[in-house]
This record gives sequence, structure tokens and C-alpha cells, in this order.
Amino acid sequence: MNIGPYSYEEFIDKVKAFHGSVAPGIVVGGIMVDIARAHLPEGEFFDVICETDRCLPDAVQILTPCTIGNGWLKIVDTSRYALTFYNKYTGDGIRVHLDAVKLTGWPCIRAWFLKDKPKKEQKIQDILDEFRKAGTCIYSLKKVKVQSSYITSLEKKSSGVAMCPSCGEAYRANLGTVCPACRGMGPFTVEGD
Amino acid sequence: MNIGPYSYEEFIDKVKAFHGSVAPGIVVGGIMVDIARAHLPEGEFFDVICETDRCLPDAVQILTPCTIGNGWLKIVDTSRYALTFYNKYTGDGIRVHLDAVKLTGWPCIRAWFLKDKPKKEQKIQDILDEFRKAGTCIYSLKKVKVQSSYITSLEKKSSGVAMCPSCGEAYRANLGTVCPACRGMGPFTVEGD
Repeated sequence: MNIGPYSYEEFIDKVKAFHGSVAPGIVVGGIMVDIARAHLPEGEFFDVICETDRCLPDAVQILTPCTIGNGWLKIVDTSRYALTFYNKYTGDGIRVHLDAVKLTGWPCIRAWFLKDKPKKEQKIQDILDEFRKAGTCIYSLKKVKVQSSYITSLEKKSSGVAMCPSCGEAYRANLGTVCPACRGMGPFTVEGD
Repeated sequence: MNIGPYSYEEFIDKVKAFHGSVAPGIVVGGIMVDIARAHLPEGEFFDVICETDRCLPDAVQILTPCTIGNGWLKIVDTSRYALTFYNKYTGDGIRVHLDAVKLTGWPCIRAWFLKDKPKKEQKIQDILDEFRKAGTCIYSLKKVKVQSSYITSLEKKSSGVAMCPSCGEAYRANLGTVCPACRGMGPFTVEGD
């Protein structure tokens, strides 16, 4: 079994280097990336949406040019284990998800995915072995049309920059007269304030 | 100038391989990662918050063990060019931001950061040259206390999994009786629906 341009073993090494550990979710993510790609028109530019921030985005970042920082990978957290590859100009896409309905016969994957068993009773190697054996038969695909807010418009203009009168830092001018952090949306308090 | 464990030129190669292009934002992000790290207690486990999803998260993912998929990198989009490295158990952190107030004397960085000039009139190489020359003097640091919602609790229990009665897919049970996508929060429509 290959994943992307890598042998299974090479992919595992890539996962360790980037993600830090070999979580089942990222291996299954690699398989899902391959399935989605196989159903895209060849040579097409695509963006990716992951419906969870857990593991799956790292498979996309390892195997495609799409990263969270270059904007070609987006996370829309519905908490479902699914990804969508789509044409960034038309929104036409292919969605792949790990399908719980198809997991009869794969007890280790099922226990991991549906959290049927305490984590300490699960063996990662058993789950990975089942993923290799199951191949592509435990996933479902559908054609989707991604909403316009996720589509790249050729005419889209980026926002200007403003200096926040409260914190004095630069922020996107179209977000209001003070920056989001100074409206209470920041993640911390400053020591001494 | 080194960035992380890399020479400047090696870092540029890493950026091209991961991010796809050498955007100034990711180079400055690399410098900001180094500044934050230099102010952390040695050997400490840390998580990272980026206050923008543009470029900066990729510098973190290239230079640290923190990725969007392993959960050690989080994005809280205030649109400010800032990152915070923090102790994941206490919330004590160091925040670094590119400080627009300190950009007098660095006209190319200023034009890029504040969008003073049309993009086509800016030369990436000139901006990068100024970043190398400016060293660490165009950033500001402060100690912060990250909010408890971003802190890892040793007692935290993960949610169970439920099957959505509407779409039939698995989702986090603590999110409601149907999944977020079936409550209208999904990113697409399904062809044929």
C-alpha cells in the first residue's frame, strides 16, 4: 500500500517527523487524501476543507501543497471525519468520509473511531493493520458544491490595514474600529494589566 | 542569520517545500518563533497560539513540534501579526508581535506590513533583506496569561461519539443531538439534494 508518493513505511516516517506520533487518524487521513485525489479532474487546482481539526489536517499538509498558513487548507469544524477537495474557483468538489456504517468486520477501527473501548485497551498496531487490510472499502464519497465564502474570487480585494487605537497594533481594517482582541476576542490577559 | 536549526538559506528551502512560496510573512514568522523560544524556560512543554491564519502558522509548523492537526498549535484570529508560546498547563506565556511602531527606518517592511504600496510595486527580495538587517529590533514582547479554555487539563475527558440521525455520520456527542453540519454549519451542499 502506498500513500501519496510514499510507501506505507515512508509515510509513517513523514507522520512521525511532522505530527510527532503515529496516530491512526493521520494514517486514515492519508488514505482519504488519496481517494479524494483519485476522483478529481487531472491537473486541477484545488483547495481542501477538513471538517475536524484533529489529525486529518496534518495528513493534508504532509501530502498536498495545501497548508493552514497558505490558505489552501481550511478547517470547518463539524467534528465529522471528512475532507473535501474542491475547485477553488467553481466550488465543485469531492467529499470523502470514514463511514461508520461500513465498519462491521473491522472491530479495531470501529472501537477506535466510535470510542467503544477505553483507549488503553486499544492497540495502535491492530488499528493500523486493519486500515491496511480494509483498503478503500470503509469510506464513502459524494460530489458537493462548496459555499461561495470558501471560493477564491479573481476580483477579491484584500482588506487594508489599520492601527488599533486601543492596543496600538496593526490589524485588518475591515474588522471594525478597534481590533478583535480589544473587543474581548483575544486569547489571554497581559501581565501587569 | 539562522532561523531555528537552519541557516537562513536552508530555512528558505524549507519554506518553499512546505508553504509553496517564500512569502515575507513566513520568514518574519520564523524570526518571531526564535524570539519567543529564546524567552521560554528551557525544556518546557509549550503550545502556540497564532493570532492570524496567514503565513505565521506555517512558520510554527516548520520550526516546532506544534501543528494544527496535533492540537499544539491553535489559531485565534484577531488578525494581528502575533504569536504566543505558552506553558500548556499553567497558561503562562510569551507573546511576540511585529511592531508597526518600530518600522520607521525600514520602508520596505513597513510598505509590506501596512499595505502602504500596491503589491506589484514591492520587491520581495528588498523586504527580506530588510528583515535580515533589522534583526530582532522591530518586534515587541510581553508576558501573558492564556485563558483557561486553551489550557490542557490533566483531568480533561474527551467527548464520546454519536451517530447523527440526520446525515448518519459520526460526530462528537457533546455538540448536540444532530451534528453541526446538519444544523446548517457545514461548508457545502450535496449534489442531488
